[in-house]
Order: sequence, then structure tokens, then C-alpha cells
Amino acid sequence: MKRIILDMMGGDLSPAETVKGVCLAAQELEPAHYLLVGDREAILRAAREESLSVDGMELVDAPSVVTMEDDAQCVIRSKADSSMAIGLRMLADGRGDAFVSTGNTGALFTGANLLVRKVKGIRRPAIAALLPMQPPVLLVDSGANIQVTPEYLEQFAVMGTVYMKRMFSLSSPRVGLLNNGSEEQKGTRLQQETYRLLSENPSLNFVGNVEGNRVMQNACDVLVADGFTGNVFLKTMEGMGKLMLVTMKDMFYAGLQTKFAALLCRKQIGSIKKKFDAREFGGAPILGVSKPVIKAHGSSDAKAFKNAIRQAMLCADLSVTEEISAQAQEWKAWKKEMASREQASETIFVKNDDKKREKE
Amino acid sequence: MKRIILDMMGGDLSPAETVKGVCLAAQELEPAHYLLVGDREAILRAAREESLSVDGMELVDAPSVVTMEDDAQCVIRSKADSSMAIGLRMLADGRGDAFVSTGNTGALFTGANLLVRKVKGIRRPAIAALLPMQPPVLLVDSGANIQVTPEYLEQFAVMGTVYMKRMFSLSSPRVGLLNNGSEEQKGTRLQQETYRLLSENPSLNFVGNVEGNRVMQNACDVLVADGFTGNVFLKTMEGMGKLMLVTMKDMFYAGLQTKFAALLCRKQIGSIKKKFDAREFGGAPILGVSKPVIKAHGSSDAKAFKNAIRQAMLCADLSVTEEISAQAQEWKAWKKEMASREQASETIFVKNDDKKREKE
Repeated sequence: MKRIILDMMGGDLSPAETVKGVCLAAQELEPAHYLLVGDREAILRAAREESLSVDGMELVDAPSVVTMEDDAQCVIRSKADSSMAIGLRMLADGRGDAFVSTGNTGALFTGANLLVRKVKGIRRPAIAALLPMQPPVLLVDSGANIQVTPEYLEQFAVMGTVYMKRMFSLSSPRVGLLNNGSEEQKGTRLQQETYRLLSENPSLNFVGNVEGNRVMQNACDVLVADGFTGNVFLKTMEGMGKLMLVTMKDMFYAGLQTKFAALLCRKQIGSIKKKFDAREFGGAPILGVSKPVIKAHGSSDAKAFKNAIRQAMLCADLSVTEEISAQAQEWKAWKKEMASREQASETIFVKNDDKKREKE
Repeated sequence: MKRIILDMMGGDLSPAETVKGVCLAAQELEPAHYLLVGDREAILRAAREESLSVDGMELVDAPSVVTMEDDAQCVIRSKADSSMAIGLRMLADGRGDAFVSTGNTGALFTGANLLVRKVKGIRRPAIAALLPMQPPVLLVDSGANIQVTPEYLEQFAVMGTVYMKRMFSLSSPRVGLLNNGSEEQKGTRLQQETYRLLSENPSLNFVGNVEGNRVMQNACDVLVADGFTGNVFLKTMEGMGKLMLVTMKDMFYAGLQTKFAALLCRKQIGSIKKKFDAREFGGAPILGVSKPVIKAHGSSDAKAFKNAIRQAMLCADLSVTEEISAQAQEWKAWKKEMASREQASETIFVKNDDKKREKE
């Protein structure tokens, strides 16, 4: 039975929806031991108000809450006694198998890095985002790493591949590099050099550069980007998705006739809403830290929180973190081999040069 | 009467749709003198096939065509006798007031730079794109400049402001910087330094950083970005827009009942299609070259080509290029003044320091 640590505070609708969410999880998901971290009184009150029971769950009182306005470092400084910081330390200490929070993304990422620690061999953890497409696409990184190197991006690709293999049973996830054209030489030096690294890496199924519009056309399963570009991409997608739903609503609300049309399409409208509903997809996994940490959306309702819990349990069950660690070791060994091979071939060139010179 | 030079070749549907387009323009728009550059025989054949007349228009024969596969430099090298290259040289020589092409974007941009030349004082011309929103938003740059400096971006903001002032009669267009968050320190060093320049420039109505999703919420009139980020943004928007139309179509085609619903909504569906229809918006102006050059979409049909012609005429009528030139001079003078002011204040500091030292 997995032990899931939950930050019950810090979201827009916490703890009301997080309490409902964990009760939903207890009902619907396989049995687990839940550790609820937060304001004990507020949690119990929220449960009472909804006539829900948190019996059998472990409550861990936390005196403070990380707000959306707090800076990223607060988890190790001013808010070391917050539900987020306490939960992360519990995870680091082995008191649980995974952690879910709806709180401040920057603080959670920093806390995961500093308190739970990186996987050995991983340069920079990343925040992945599951894009609401069919089939889903995993974007790595969605905004955590603004300054990156080609090697970071290569590791993002490796981690994303592990995630999609394990969580979606894909045998060989297609990796695409977000770029401004499909040709090899497209992009800035960062993309050009990353293209080379991704092409050379034998553990990746690299399908080349992918343009923004091709992501929606099933061009790849893992979309690699630096955090700046990934974030612009993700928010543009979100903005257009919202615009689409609003436009459809306006269409159906235009008059009596169109309202009747909406009735005729209600099944389809439901499935469109579901298709573009971020809540269906759970949260954003932080890849590259040594235990599963899931960032649920700040405005998560009960259903979204439950789905993030399910995702955390799956990550723990399927040993995603352990596999990332194994891959990081392989990556390191492979890089070492490549470097020594290059050196060897250089040595041969030098020797050949020497021989030439001798002859002359 | 304005003289509009048209590249009749090089698009996906050229010259069939470009011929129909210019005939449509001759019918619907204010009188103009049209110079049709391309394969004379092909143009006349296309006109005959549609029973259209190009009488009164000037035909300029061009032996070759720039294809979408040609490299950007071809306009001055292997394809110097193409309709695009001949048209651009005619524009440079003063034989017309504006130029429209549906051809290869890279070649057109390079040709505009090398044959028509930059506006004096403008570091890098940019390809702007009018985003299909209400009210419309002008994205500068949409993909021409991958390597940029903060000063280029500042000039993009100045040129975009001129365009929106003149073409859409906005008194003070709101300029936003595409970024991964709204706070001042967001983004890479490029965005941070650009933020400072845009804030300091008194000729701009800078409203700060704008995230991808906020662009659709009427956050700004001019969206400034480097060509890489701008291109990712634009293509993501296009991809989601297409996904939206496909999703709606699938909804209405699901069964008899939904097909009937589509009939009830047909007016609204039409206006949604129109709203997201790139053809309604004409082409992408290349800002910063000394005469108006409009890049129409490669798959332009007659209507899209006509709208690009209208846009070119408006650009010429409203002296957009001349105003950009005037603003570039003001910008230069202002930068000079700023530099001398900074030097002066430094001198004062040094003098004060000297006095201090003397006292000690």
C-alpha cells in the first residue's frame, strides 16, 4: 500500500476541494495511506461541512501556508513550517512514497530540488506538462528552467521518454524538439546543438524538429523545449483553448434557435469540454527529483486533485523515479564512452599524422 | 493613383488565384495601376480560362519562379530573373509604390532587404503578422529574425506602433512583450533588457510583459517578440485554431441530430469561420524596408490575394514606410541625447568624486 503525502493548503480552493478530493480518491482509487499536511482545524472543519470523514488518514499539522505571492526560496526560509515544506521534508525522510501539492509552482520546484534532492546524474529537474490532446503529449520543460544548455534538454528528453513509457505504456515514445521549422539547422544555437545531441542518443526515438502547429497533429509523444519557449507554447495553447470554448458558448447562446441546437449537440459538447479539460489529465510531474512530486493546478477542484493523487500513486507504483535514475546512470556511462571514443579517434589521427611526418 | 507591383507566381495556387485576385481588386478597390510580374503566357491563359480580362494592367514577363524550396539568397543569385526578384527591383527603382508576393517568405525577406533596402536607421526589418483576433493584434517579429538584440526588439515595437496607428487609426497602440510571466524580471536576459528599453522609450505605450494566453484577452495591440518565440507563438495559435474548427466540424457531423443543429447555427458558424480566417486579414507586412512589401500567404486564394493588395495600397496611401523612417530618425536622435545625458551625469559624478578626494 503506497503512502501519499498531500499538501492540503496553498491552492485557490484549499482546503475545501483538497479534502473532497482526497475523500474521492479514498473511495475510487486503490487503497492507500494518506498523510494530510496542513491546518488541522481547517481540514477537519472542511470535512465536517461536507459531511465527509478523514478517519484512517494521518493528519500532520502545519502552522503556515505558502501563498501564490511567496518567493520560491520561502520553503527553506520564512515558510519552512508550511504544509508544502513539511510535506516535502516528510517525502525526503521516507515517510511517504509521493507528494502532491496545488501550491505555488516556483516554491514547489525549489523545495523539491532542495529538500527532496535531484536524482544522481540529472543536471536539472524539469516540470513536465501533459497536454490535453489525444493521444496526450508530454511537454518537458513547461517553465521551470529558463537558462538551459543542450545537455539539459537532452536529459529532459530522456526523462520524458521514461515517463511516457511507464505511464502510458508506449514502447518507444517519439521525441520532438519544439522549433520554428522542421529543418535540422532551424532555431538558435541552443536548438541546433540540441538537435545534434538528440539525434546521436541511441536511447531516444528522436523524430526531429516539431513546429507549434504540428504538436496538435500527433507529431510526437514527448515535446522537448527550454522552459521559456515551453511556457510560451503552453500558455498560448491554453489561451486558444479557452477562446475556443468561449466562442462555442457564444455561438450556442446567440438565440433560441441556437440554444435548441446546443441541446441537440449536448453529448458532443460534453466530450469536447472533457477533451480540453485540464482536470482530466491530473497534474504536472516534476521530473528528475528522487521521489515523485506532482504539481496540481492552483485552481484544482476535488476531481482535479483526485486525478493528481492517482497520478502520484501510479508514478510510485510504476517506479518512474527509479527508472529515471537508472537512465541517468546509463546516460552518464554512454557520455563517458563517447568521450573516450572521440579521444581514441583523435589519438589515431595524431598517430597517422606522426607517421606521415616521419615518411616525409 | 497608386502603382501596385504584383508577383503573380510562386504561391501554391499561382497564377490562377493571383489573376482572379487582381481582377477582384480592380473591381472592388479604388482605382490603381497594376503591374503583373510573371510568366506572361501563363497569366494570359489563367485569365482566359476564367473569362477574365487583364486589359489595362501592365504585364512584365519574368523567365523564372522562386519556389518554396529555393534558398533565401536565390533572389540575388540563381533566380535574379524570377518574378519576385524583378518585382522587387522594379519597386526599388521607383516603378511602383508597393509590392505583394505569395512566394517563399525567406527569399522575399532577403530580397526586400537587399534589393529594396532598409529604412535608414532601422537595424533589422521584421515580418509582422496580424493575428486574427478582435481587435486585431500585430505580432512583430513573426519569424524573420532568430538572432536579435534588445535594440532590435525596441525598433520592432516602434515600427509596430506606427503600423497600428496608421492602418487601424489607434491613437496610442498598447505594446506588450511576449514573455513567460508578467513580472518585470521574467524571461531570459533578452526579455529583461528589452523590458527596460521599452519602459524607457517615451514614444511607446508599453503595457509590460504579456503571457501567451493573455494575448487572446485583449492585453495589447502590438506584441513584440524575437523571431523564434514569435514563430512558435504564431504556429501554436494556428494549430489550435485549426484544431478548434476540426473539433466543431466533428461535433456537427456526428449524426443526423447534430447536422440539424448545424443548420440552426449556420449563421454563427459562418462568422466563427470568418473570425478565424487568415484570408480576411490580408498578408504580413515586412516592416523596416523603404517601400511597402506585403507577404501574402503561400496558399492564398483570390480573396486573400485581393485583401493583401488592399493592404499594400493602404500602406502606400497612409505613408506607413515614410512614418517608420521619420520615427527611426527620432529614435536615433533620442538615443544620442540619452547617451550624452548619461555621459554628462557620469562626468558630474567624477567631478564630485574628484572634489571629495581633494577635500580628504
